[in-house]
Amino acid sequence: MPVDNDNPLYEDLMKDYDNSLDHSGINGERIAKRLFELSKIGFVQIGGVKRPGFSNEEKEAKTLVKKWMASAGLAVSEDGAGNITARLEGKNEGAAIASGSHVDSVPNGGNFDGPLGVLSALEVVESWKETGYIPEKPYEIIVFSDEEGSRFNSGLTGSQAMTGAISEEEMAQLRDYNGETLEQVLAHYGSTLDAFRAAKRDISELELFVEVHIEQGKKLEKANEPVGIVSGIAGPAWLEVEFVGEAGHAGNTPMIGRKDCLVAAADFLQSIPEFPKGISDTAVATVGKMDVYPNGANVIPEKVRMLVDIRDIKEEPRDRLIDQVIEQAEKVAAKHEIHSNIKLNTRIQPVPIAEDLQNRLASSLNKFGISPIYIPSGAGHDAMNLGRFIPVAMLFVRSKDGISHNPKEWSSLNDCITGIHVLKDFIEDAMKK
Amino acid sequence: MPVDNDNPLYEDLMKDYDNSLDHSGINGERIAKRLFELSKIGFVQIGGVKRPGFSNEEKEAKTLVKKWMASAGLAVSEDGAGNITARLEGKNEGAAIASGSHVDSVPNGGNFDGPLGVLSALEVVESWKETGYIPEKPYEIIVFSDEEGSRFNSGLTGSQAMTGAISEEEMAQLRDYNGETLEQVLAHYGSTLDAFRAAKRDISELELFVEVHIEQGKKLEKANEPVGIVSGIAGPAWLEVEFVGEAGHAGNTPMIGRKDCLVAAADFLQSIPEFPKGISDTAVATVGKMDVYPNGANVIPEKVRMLVDIRDIKEEPRDRLIDQVIEQAEKVAAKHEIHSNIKLNTRIQPVPIAEDLQNRLASSLNKFGISPIYIPSGAGHDAMNLGRFIPVAMLFVRSKDGISHNPKEWSSLNDCITGIHVLKDFIEDAMKK
Repeated sequence: MPVDNDNPLYEDLMKDYDNSLDHSGINGERIAKRLFELSKIGFVQIGGVKRPGFSNEEKEAKTLVKKWMASAGLAVSEDGAGNITARLEGKNEGAAIASGSHVDSVPNGGNFDGPLGVLSALEVVESWKETGYIPEKPYEIIVFSDEEGSRFNSGLTGSQAMTGAISEEEMAQLRDYNGETLEQVLAHYGSTLDAFRAAKRDISELELFVEVHIEQGKKLEKANEPVGIVSGIAGPAWLEVEFVGEAGHAGNTPMIGRKDCLVAAADFLQSIPEFPKGISDTAVATVGKMDVYPNGANVIPEKVRMLVDIRDIKEEPRDRLIDQVIEQAEKVAAKHEIHSNIKLNTRIQPVPIAEDLQNRLASSLNKFGISPIYIPSGAGHDAMNLGRFIPVAMLFVRSKDGISHNPKEWSSLNDCITGIHVLKDFIEDAMKK
Repeated sequence: MPVDNDNPLYEDLMKDYDNSLDHSGINGERIAKRLFELSKIGFVQIGGVKRPGFSNEEKEAKTLVKKWMASAGLAVSEDGAGNITARLEGKNEGAAIASGSHVDSVPNGGNFDGPLGVLSALEVVESWKETGYIPEKPYEIIVFSDEEGSRFNSGLTGSQAMTGAISEEEMAQLRDYNGETLEQVLAHYGSTLDAFRAAKRDISELELFVEVHIEQGKKLEKANEPVGIVSGIAGPAWLEVEFVGEAGHAGNTPMIGRKDCLVAAADFLQSIPEFPKGISDTAVATVGKMDVYPNGANVIPEKVRMLVDIRDIKEEPRDRLIDQVIEQAEKVAAKHEIHSNIKLNTRIQPVPIAEDLQNRLASSLNKFGISPIYIPSGAGHDAMNLGRFIPVAMLFVRSKDGISHNPKEWSSLNDCITGIHVLKDFIEDAMKK
């Protein structure tokens, strides 16, 4: 590879690479080279790319991946939602084992979130080609469109289309960052609404879907392990809590008798972190968005609106947590003698990962001397949509400082390649079952 | 007066008027008529006016007031800052007793904030004219320009010019809502920067300034008294408190180990109301403005910026309160292991009202059977600027529901006229001293 001073990704990846990881047909340099080639498409700054779903950049990245798929001997097809499927027939017919991820990014995203899962799934085939391995069952690599949601402010578009999880009403309401409808966006991309609808496939053609993804958290870093097992994909619930008190002049209203809804909101906010702790190790509750009205320096706030993001990997404890937070909001409002308006805006079902699959991933990890660490995925992934129909599994690769959706996103090539070895072992094991 | 269905102010004022208040030359109908005439200038909606400082509307209101002043036999002049002075010579020469207020308004302000003080000062002269009373000392009515600050986002412009409280640097930095400089605004108004500078006068020409104003609070309403005594004018201090923690994905970051600066801010916000209570009955501290960054539903807040508005009518306790709030912000930041940036943006000196003047106002109130209620003024007034040079006193007239800067602003004509009787008594008493 030539040195590219503007984009040192390839050199940075290769710098510390442990060549002894190159075995069984898996090749670190190929992954470094491919991550680098993808990082040039939509390049924003060192480490940073912009490849929104259905953009020319996402399309260009897919075209490059399709070229690599074809030269690996795979039968490549694309559906009307822009999802790429590359298929390798097995010794036997029947349902396929599938793996994959996405190549779109958030506006200033990193080089690993998405591409690593796609290239890992492809590297398994590359290794089989080199070693002459022919799988028992068919194998499919899927590149999903518009996973991140930067196009329509609501992600997982490709996997929603493929699983039929998006309703006609939802399709009609989508508007992208230019105000365009789904139909207009698809037209620019070279597709139609009808073709998008036809992207729905019979998911039972797949036996199992497994995705490699960067962790986007610090658990593996803290445990000093390169790869870990996703224990479940948390479904977020968004609770809108509005407190309404009484505005007043900050100078002329005595402290006694005020109905300051920001003070009430503070009471509520401060108590929130206590609730998930009482629910489970994996439950989280966060207020990230909060707006104060009228937000004037000398006016006692009349209204505060907060969004409480509540997640857990199982639905029952997650819903119990929602109930507790609602109860707390009502209790705090009553205590401060103000009004509360509470609304559940979003309630996505969490997707559990079958224990059996987690155990099988653990056996694969053990073969490489890695102690299994179980990590809930707080973020959504395409595996979440597929997981409503077929068993899914996920492997997380260690993220430096837990950073993602950011040019600082980083996973070492050693960790990436270790992840691919584990994926390959797990898939080959699944082929025999 | 003809009925005006679009603006029923006159009828509403006269409806419950107690005619027995018409004595000693003071006339309720005249005040109702004049409030009504002013309410038509910059009329926005019933109860609502828009007369920004240095606007055509403020100028038109001043022209009308000047006409009334002249017909009351006063010598009217206007300085380069647009301040109107109407002078009545007394039996003797020497420093004058002065009273007044302003006729500008906030964008959708009410009909009493400002005009009541101007018309009260004028009604005292009208009463003298009717009864043939000639004061011992000279008497001045002052109408200050741009009190509310809706023009330049920083008020009391006229009284600042008159007292020389505005520096060349501050003058150079002023930009109005159209982005115009002070010089440009003055040019449209018919004045110049030099004339503005020349508005500075020798304040020792005034012995005392007394202002009638609506309370803009609920203390008189709660005490069921029409008029009360201002115990001091609180100088606001604005403390900017910024908390900086660590952003993170709301789903992927475990509760333990978070550095959520919104949770820290909540801890701080909740504690604030405790501090003024420990300082004095008049101290207040309020966070009205708060911004969360990046303010995304699924992102743990990285930064929170708050403005703490801190006031008291005496400087020492006010400054002690500032110190306590700073100390608390630092303590909370340390407890939550986050950073804090604390900056004192504004620190205006409070203006005390001399006890002697408060006692004299109390004697006047007693003559009308009113128990004196002492009320700190949380809001700033032109009396604040004069109070740095000469003794000032203020009377508050009861505000319905404490509402001001709003079309719902309301003081009954009975309360207004009672206030004028008290003002007249206080001024006549001051004439004799």
